[in-house]
Amino acid sequence: MDVRLAMTGFGNVGRGVAELLANHREEYQARYGVRLLLTGVADRRGAVVDAGGLNEVELIRNKQELGSVSGQTAGAGRPADEAFLIDSRADVLIEAASTNFEDAEPGWSLIKSALNLELDVVLASKGALVLYYSQLMTLAATRGKTVSHSATVGAPLPVLDVINRTLVGTRILGFEGVLNSTSNVILQAMTDGKSYDEGVRLAQEMGIAETDPTLDVDGWDAAAKAAIVANAAFGSSLGIADVSREGIRTVPAAEIEAAARQGEALKLVSMGSLREGEVVAEVRVVRRSRSHPLGRLRGSEMGVLIHADPLGDFTATVENLGASGGIATASTVLRDVLNLASRRGWNSDRRS
Amino acid sequence: MDVRLAMTGFGNVGRGVAELLANHREEYQARYGVRLLLTGVADRRGAVVDAGGLNEVELIRNKQELGSVSGQTAGAGRPADEAFLIDSRADVLIEAASTNFEDAEPGWSLIKSALNLELDVVLASKGALVLYYSQLMTLAATRGKTVSHSATVGAPLPVLDVINRTLVGTRILGFEGVLNSTSNVILQAMTDGKSYDEGVRLAQEMGIAETDPTLDVDGWDAAAKAAIVANAAFGSSLGIADVSREGIRTVPAAEIEAAARQGEALKLVSMGSLREGEVVAEVRVVRRSRSHPLGRLRGSEMGVLIHADPLGDFTATVENLGASGGIATASTVLRDVLNLASRRGWNSDRRS
Repeated sequence: MDVRLAMTGFGNVGRGVAELLANHREEYQARYGVRLLLTGVADRRGAVVDAGGLNEVELIRNKQELGSVSGQTAGAGRPADEAFLIDSRADVLIEAASTNFEDAEPGWSLIKSALNLELDVVLASKGALVLYYSQLMTLAATRGKTVSHSATVGAPLPVLDVINRTLVGTRILGFEGVLNSTSNVILQAMTDGKSYDEGVRLAQEMGIAETDPTLDVDGWDAAAKAAIVANAAFGSSLGIADVSREGIRTVPAAEIEAAARQGEALKLVSMGSLREGEVVAEVRVVRRSRSHPLGRLRGSEMGVLIHADPLGDFTATVENLGASGGIATASTVLRDVLNLASRRGWNSDRRS
Repeated sequence: MDVRLAMTGFGNVGRGVAELLANHREEYQARYGVRLLLTGVADRRGAVVDAGGLNEVELIRNKQELGSVSGQTAGAGRPADEAFLIDSRADVLIEAASTNFEDAEPGWSLIKSALNLELDVVLASKGALVLYYSQLMTLAATRGKTVSHSATVGAPLPVLDVINRTLVGTRILGFEGVLNSTSNVILQAMTDGKSYDEGVRLAQEMGIAETDPTLDVDGWDAAAKAAIVANAAFGSSLGIADVSREGIRTVPAAEIEAAARQGEALKLVSMGSLREGEVVAEVRVVRRSRSHPLGRLRGSEMGVLIHADPLGDFTATVENLGASGGIATASTVLRDVLNLASRRGWNSDRRS
C-alpha cells in the first residue's frame, strides 16, 4: 500500500530522505511491500503539499536554486501546521529540522499536532526528545502511536536498534559511547600535536562539524545522546538537564600529550549506568587505552560498548561518513519508517 | 498469555534456556507480556511432557543425576515425535540438539512435523538450515510459520538480527566475520609461539572447543555460518556444500610467524559477497592488519564487518564467554521467542 510521509527540515538529512526515495522507491516497494510517498515537505521558508506525492527531484532543485522546497521567497509558502499534516494525508511525520535544545520549536508543536491527528512520528532531531520526553511518550501512548528515533543517536550506528531489538531478553547494566564525532576528531587532532583551533577546522573540512561547533564541543549533543540511550536501555525518562556534562574546550593540551605518551587516548564519552537503582547518565572526557574497544577508535569513527547480562560486552562501531553522513542518517530514518510499516502490517494490507 | 515451548536438546544451550526460564520467567512476563512455559523437553534418552509446564529445576537435576531430563534409563522415555509436540500443546519448537551436518537428524524430521502442525520454529542447531534451506523455508512459508535462528551464528553476537532488523533499508554489499572461536583461539596461540596441539588444548580448557574439534578446525562450522549469513544478507538459498572452505590444520607455522613479524594476524574468516550478481560464500584463512576491525580481535572475541550502502562499514564485536557461552546462546534463543511473541501479538492477546 501507499504510505504517506510529511517531513519538516530539508538540510542534509531531509534532502537525503528525498534522494533515497527518488532513487529507491521501487526497490523499497519490491522488498518491503510499501510505496513511500513524500506528500508534504516544509523548510524554514514554507511548506508544499501534494497528497498524490511530491516530485523529489523538483524539491531538491527548488531548495538549491530558490533556497526553499516551496519554491517561494521568504514567507510565501504555507506554514507547517496542522492543516499541512491534514492536507498531506500523512501516515507518518518525519521531523528532520535542526535540533533546538532551547524549546524544541517549531518541531515540538508540530509533533504534538501529529500525534493528536493519530500519525506515527519518526524523529531525526533531538530537541523534543530530551526536553519533553515524558510528555512526548505519554501523548504517543495515549494515542496508540509510536515515536521512533533511531537517527537521533550516532546514525548510521544503530545503537537504539541494538538496544530495542537485538538485546531483547537481556538486561543492560551500562553503556559507554563515542557518539559525537566532532569532539573526537578534535581530540584526535590534538593527540597528533595540532591545536584546538586546527582541530575544529579539520572537523569542518571533513564536513562533520557545524559552522558553530558549540553544541558539539561543549558536550550538549553528547549529553542529549546519553539521555536518549539511557532511556532506551533503562526505561528511564531523562532529559538533557539530567545529564552531568563536560566539554572538550577546557581540556589542557598537556593532559592530551601525557595520555598519548602512555599510548592512551582521550575521548568524549556518553555513558549511562544503574547506581543503587538510579539511572545515572553523564558526559565525560576520559582516558581509554588502545586495547579498549573505544580507545581503538580512530578520529571519525563512532562506537558504543554495552555491558549486558548474560550477553557480555557487546561493541558496535561504524566509520563516520563525513559530508555523506546525511544520506546514512536519512537511511536510518527510512529504516524506522519501514520497520513501522512492518509492525503496523501496512506491507500486507491490500488497500492503496 | 501463556506461550508453550517444546525443546529438543539439553546440553549447554538447552540447560541454559531452562535456567533462564526458571530464574527470569516473572521478569519476562512483566517486560514482554508473555508467560513462557517449557511444556515438552527431549534429550537423546527420551522426552518428558507436561502441558501445564515442566519444572525446570527438576529437569536440570534429572539430567545431572540420572543422565536424562526424562529421569529414565536409556530407552525408557517417550520419543521426541509428533505426539510429543501435540501433547505438549507447544506454540513453538526450540531445536537445540547438537548440530549434525550429515543428515540433520533427528532434528530435521521433528522440525517438519512442527511446521506441519503449525508451530513456529526457533533453531539453535545449524544442520537443517544448511542442508535443507530451501525446503525448510518453503515449508514454513506454506504453513505461514516462521523459522528464527539468531542463535546459529556467533551467538551472543547478534549478526543475523543486525542484518534482518537494524540494516533494513540498506543494501548489503558484502561481509566478513570471525565467527568460529575455537579456530581463532588456536591461531592466536600459534601467533604467540605455541604449537597447534597446545592451541587446541587451550581452547578446550577455555570451554570453547569440543572434545573433537574437527567441525571447528576444518572450517565446517565457519562454512555453515557463511551460508546462513549470506542467505540473510542476500536472500540466497545456499547450503553448506555451496561454501568453498578451508581449515586451519594445514596452515604452516612459518606463515603465522611471518604474519606476526609484520604485525598482522591470521584469522579464519567466513565471508560473502555479490560477484556479477552471484552470491559467493567462502571460508578462508586470511591475513588482517591490527588496524583492521577483525585484525584487532583478540583470541576469543568474535566479530563481523558488514559493508552496506549507504551505511558504510559497520562492525560488531563481542567477547566470547567461554563455558558460560551456553547461557548467552540460550538468551539469544529466548530473544527469538520474545520477538516472535511480539510479532504474533501474543503479548497483547488476553487468552491464557
